[in-house]
Amino acid sequence: MSISLKVAHGKSEILIERDVRNRLIQHANLDRKVLVLCDDGIPYEYVETVRKQCGIPFVKIIPHGEKSKSLNMVEELCAFMVQKSFGKEDLVLAVGGGVVGDLGGFIASIYLGGIDVISLPTTTLSQIDSSIGGKTAVNFAGAKNMVGTFYQPSKVFIDLNTLSTLTRRQYYSGIVEALKAGLIRDPRLFDLFVNNKVDFAEEIPPADLEEVIERSLYVKRDVVEEDEKEEGVRKILNFGHTIGHAIESLYMGKYYHGECVGLGMLIVLENEKLRKQVKEILKKMDMPTYVEFTVEELIPYITKDKKFDGEKISLVQVDTVGKAYIKEVDLDWMKRHLEEYKK
Amino acid sequence: MSISLKVAHGKSEILIERDVRNRLIQHANLDRKVLVLCDDGIPYEYVETVRKQCGIPFVKIIPHGEKSKSLNMVEELCAFMVQKSFGKEDLVLAVGGGVVGDLGGFIASIYLGGIDVISLPTTTLSQIDSSIGGKTAVNFAGAKNMVGTFYQPSKVFIDLNTLSTLTRRQYYSGIVEALKAGLIRDPRLFDLFVNNKVDFAEEIPPADLEEVIERSLYVKRDVVEEDEKEEGVRKILNFGHTIGHAIESLYMGKYYHGECVGLGMLIVLENEKLRKQVKEILKKMDMPTYVEFTVEELIPYITKDKKFDGEKISLVQVDTVGKAYIKEVDLDWMKRHLEEYKK
Repeated sequence: MSISLKVAHGKSEILIERDVRNRLIQHANLDRKVLVLCDDGIPYEYVETVRKQCGIPFVKIIPHGEKSKSLNMVEELCAFMVQKSFGKEDLVLAVGGGVVGDLGGFIASIYLGGIDVISLPTTTLSQIDSSIGGKTAVNFAGAKNMVGTFYQPSKVFIDLNTLSTLTRRQYYSGIVEALKAGLIRDPRLFDLFVNNKVDFAEEIPPADLEEVIERSLYVKRDVVEEDEKEEGVRKILNFGHTIGHAIESLYMGKYYHGECVGLGMLIVLENEKLRKQVKEILKKMDMPTYVEFTVEELIPYITKDKKFDGEKISLVQVDTVGKAYIKEVDLDWMKRHLEEYKK
Repeated sequence: MSISLKVAHGKSEILIERDVRNRLIQHANLDRKVLVLCDDGIPYEYVETVRKQCGIPFVKIIPHGEKSKSLNMVEELCAFMVQKSFGKEDLVLAVGGGVVGDLGGFIASIYLGGIDVISLPTTTLSQIDSSIGGKTAVNFAGAKNMVGTFYQPSKVFIDLNTLSTLTRRQYYSGIVEALKAGLIRDPRLFDLFVNNKVDFAEEIPPADLEEVIERSLYVKRDVVEEDEKEEGVRKILNFGHTIGHAIESLYMGKYYHGECVGLGMLIVLENEKLRKQVKEILKKMDMPTYVEFTVEELIPYITKDKKFDGEKISLVQVDTVGKAYIKEVDLDWMKRHLEEYKK
């Protein structure tokens, strides 16, 4: 199935189809110069499958992980495209997780003032979340996603069968963003988790994953169409991320992004019943529901966040499933709240 | 007077008012962190005038000239903004010629996914042309404007009295872009040049410069509103630039941009009467109407151009004043044409 996303300056066609990686040319023009940007975490078979479908392919395989999202890498890749005489009609095709998506989108958005970019996300996290919505970014000066643009990929190919090579931990770390999508905007999606209609079995990807992915994508699509540039409602997509990012930074990569977001949602929730439900779901996914930290060591990471203006922290809160809102809290609230969680 | 420019993703308010640099706060919110980005070619008085009007100003003065339009400079300035904790609500204010405009626009477009940028162009070239339309860019891998974005400044302040410190040569080098605007889209503007209603006297800026500037801005505004991303009609703004850029590169800065564009228009024109008129006008502005080059040495710079696809060169041509069109020529046409000019 296919979902369209339209914003003022462009549109994305999101195609959800198992094994679509083998049939990209049926849906997109690859008969041009194509920078096939992959991370070294994906099976080499995917690289070859994609490369063979391109008219004039140039494959770049970069190290997986946040370190590749640097301005140095941007420079290296742009220099490569200049050297290969990439023109305005050519293409960046990002194959892999969130890192190649964010990086590939960014270089496509600035090369010659912007060229076409297509994404083939291969992780749950990137399929549900980062490949959709046109946020591109690299890290800078020690801060995550400090530099970036809003730039929509023309197509996003979501091939659920690429998830089969993920570990269970990687897989569920991404599924957390679907749980988040349900909490902020789609009670029916949240119910799928509560009532065990999400298959928490060993097999990855589960046979009936489609509904979870599609519902998550509709949430993201609707929010982005309402507010592409995150000036208003798009902020709710950051539910769980303020504390989540802080834990992620504090532990320097020990916990996955989705694990930290799960913890971040758990800690911030004030509705007791909801908090218990979320905790149960995280447990079913073998995700951590408690990590050690002192309030003193976590706070500096929270105040470094882009959403902290020196006095107030803009936090996303959910009291009723499907109804997220922005809650302004001060540092004292945050400290009290973190202390309570630790009890 | 004021001109609005609206595109899908933003709008610019262009204010044309002598000495407006002293009254920026009447028209814009400067009560925030402001990166006042200046080039060292402007009088220090302008820097001070602007700085005093800002709530929390941070002044950066960069060397004038194309060398400052580098990714290194982008990195340095973004690092500076990170260090000073610039947030999403803060501002880049570019004061100077085209270089600070292109560079300031670019860093504003990528910092935190895009923050506000205001421009106070101080040269004829930037007032007529580069400050309008949202093209931002830096040079890269030896190629001009290789990396950039489309990003509209919220306001552009055009203070004709800042032109008083330009040399006559700098001044007219920019006025050439007004001549170009007339040729491609506004016969009345071209007539101002033909009938000496443009004041070619010594005094800079002339007392009646407003009509020339305003008409040029309307041409640019209309073209950009029709085609912000240069996928169609916006290409006509490149009239004279294919050969012009080649001459500029060949002479490595000996001739100013506008001088090269003037030569580029002159060489490409096929309508004899029109060519003579343009030549006369260039002479009145003390602009070069002939420079030495061999066809062999110029051609490599033309084929390196972004508008060359390996076989055809997309050139802008004007046979009737006000009606520019895209003409596809091959290398042989270009060689013949350059030989003819040299006779």
